[in-house]
Amino acid sequence: MSAPYPFLKGHGTENDFVLLPDHDGTVHGGLDEDAWQTRVRALCHRRAGIGGDGVLRVVRSTRPEDGTWFMDYRNADGSVSEMCGNGVRVFALHLVQEGLVDPAAPIAVGTRDGVKTVTVEDDGRLTVDMGLARLLGTTEVSLDGRTWPATHVDVGNPHAVAFLADGEDLDGLSGPGQPLAAPAYDAAVYPAGVNVELVVRRGPHHVALRVHERGSGETRSCGTGACAVMAAAAAADGAPEGTAYRVDVPGGTLSIAVVDGRVRMTGPAVVLARGTTTL
Amino acid sequence: MSAPYPFLKGHGTENDFVLLPDHDGTVHGGLDEDAWQTRVRALCHRRAGIGGDGVLRVVRSTRPEDGTWFMDYRNADGSVSEMCGNGVRVFALHLVQEGLVDPAAPIAVGTRDGVKTVTVEDDGRLTVDMGLARLLGTTEVSLDGRTWPATHVDVGNPHAVAFLADGEDLDGLSGPGQPLAAPAYDAAVYPAGVNVELVVRRGPHHVALRVHERGSGETRSCGTGACAVMAAAAAADGAPEGTAYRVDVPGGTLSIAVVDGRVRMTGPAVVLARGTTTL
Repeated sequence: MSAPYPFLKGHGTENDFVLLPDHDGTVHGGLDEDAWQTRVRALCHRRAGIGGDGVLRVVRSTRPEDGTWFMDYRNADGSVSEMCGNGVRVFALHLVQEGLVDPAAPIAVGTRDGVKTVTVEDDGRLTVDMGLARLLGTTEVSLDGRTWPATHVDVGNPHAVAFLADGEDLDGLSGPGQPLAAPAYDAAVYPAGVNVELVVRRGPHHVALRVHERGSGETRSCGTGACAVMAAAAAADGAPEGTAYRVDVPGGTLSIAVVDGRVRMTGPAVVLARGTTTL
Repeated sequence: MSAPYPFLKGHGTENDFVLLPDHDGTVHGGLDEDAWQTRVRALCHRRAGIGGDGVLRVVRSTRPEDGTWFMDYRNADGSVSEMCGNGVRVFALHLVQEGLVDPAAPIAVGTRDGVKTVTVEDDGRLTVDMGLARLLGTTEVSLDGRTWPATHVDVGNPHAVAFLADGEDLDGLSGPGQPLAAPAYDAAVYPAGVNVELVVRRGPHHVALRVHERGSGETRSCGTGACAVMAAAAAADGAPEGTAYRVDVPGGTLSIAVVDGRVRMTGPAVVLARGTTTL
């Protein structure tokens, strides 16, 4: 039991987070790495904790090149992650709701993958400049004895994007109502693990996916994963730059386009609860 | 989006709940049944909500025979449940923490299954008088093509308790890390559905279980289920009254004995967060 400290709960397309406002670092309190990982796991535990796919700690940047606010993101298992595309929308919404930034101007969020720029759309959705999606060749992934060719895409973190064959569907990838098991991948290509997206086409410039995130298991959405999928689909389609793709994830819908070589992802964000915890 | 209203999050052996303090009924606000069920589902949603196996609404009793405080319990799917043995410990702990009851005296909690009496032990655990566990004969349950004989036990709500055969284990009842699928049962015996416990023996007066709760799926613990299992095990063992059984559930350990014909369950309770939500 800790002394009570503040938290918020939010999600973007059901990729959910515990937000920890810790502007001056007192919540972290200089805990060592093991102790902090234990705290993150406790916060994200879905029965004994608050529950989440990860923790977004809200800290003032210590380096000018990170902008004013830094998103210290951890996966549910306590491990560090470079970036989280749904998380950064929730993070930016939180900054707006707390009056910490001007919603009429682009919002700079420092991350371990560099500064991300978020803009608030007229309809309340948020658009994130996710930077470059680099296609790095082909690999393959396997699940339950099935193997698919996959595209290796780097969006600040590593992805393997596999399109299912004709006649295969996303529901058939696990038992009814069951989460995806961890796909097998080539550890020589992904020495630090990989996020795996399994994808079907729904129509022109319209795809749907399920995603298995390293450290978190299957999630309802993965922002960088949706961008990786869009990049792989656009390359396969030979789609011109600026083409907007609808990317359906289990928890909602994202709209993604490449503009001036950079991936722009638009989607919803919600903060639904706030309070204090003793975890 | 609602106006913000208060909530707490708590658990007993990882059977977790959203607590809604609503002493005067303003949070409920006279919503019709469909609207209230929708609210409960939103609160219990593990990605877009706070997350929980159910909601414990804390209301002042309107009938003298219910005592001062009434636990208005709903399953995660919005349906009404008569009682929840882990929930009533969390509920009583909340009353103690808020100064609403005297922890040195037995705490009366009104439920749809009558008034339950909770006492606070010296070690902080809470003991609940769960009332009678009535053994109502034999039935059977099935899962993934396997069928086991089961004991029909009523502990205010209906249970089917099945002991696995020698050589079967709890982990083997689902894929690794996967939740239990819904067991099949005799709808003539359980017209309103049933909670199913699958049980192994660990030693003398020591059992372990997994449980599938109607309306919630597999949970980390079910208090009435643990009592039903203890009653079935004690009957099978011919154990004298007063014999304490250790009942391991996935989320922790309970100690259960029958005293003066009534089931007394002792276990932990935790309230880990509090705040406001707009769900």
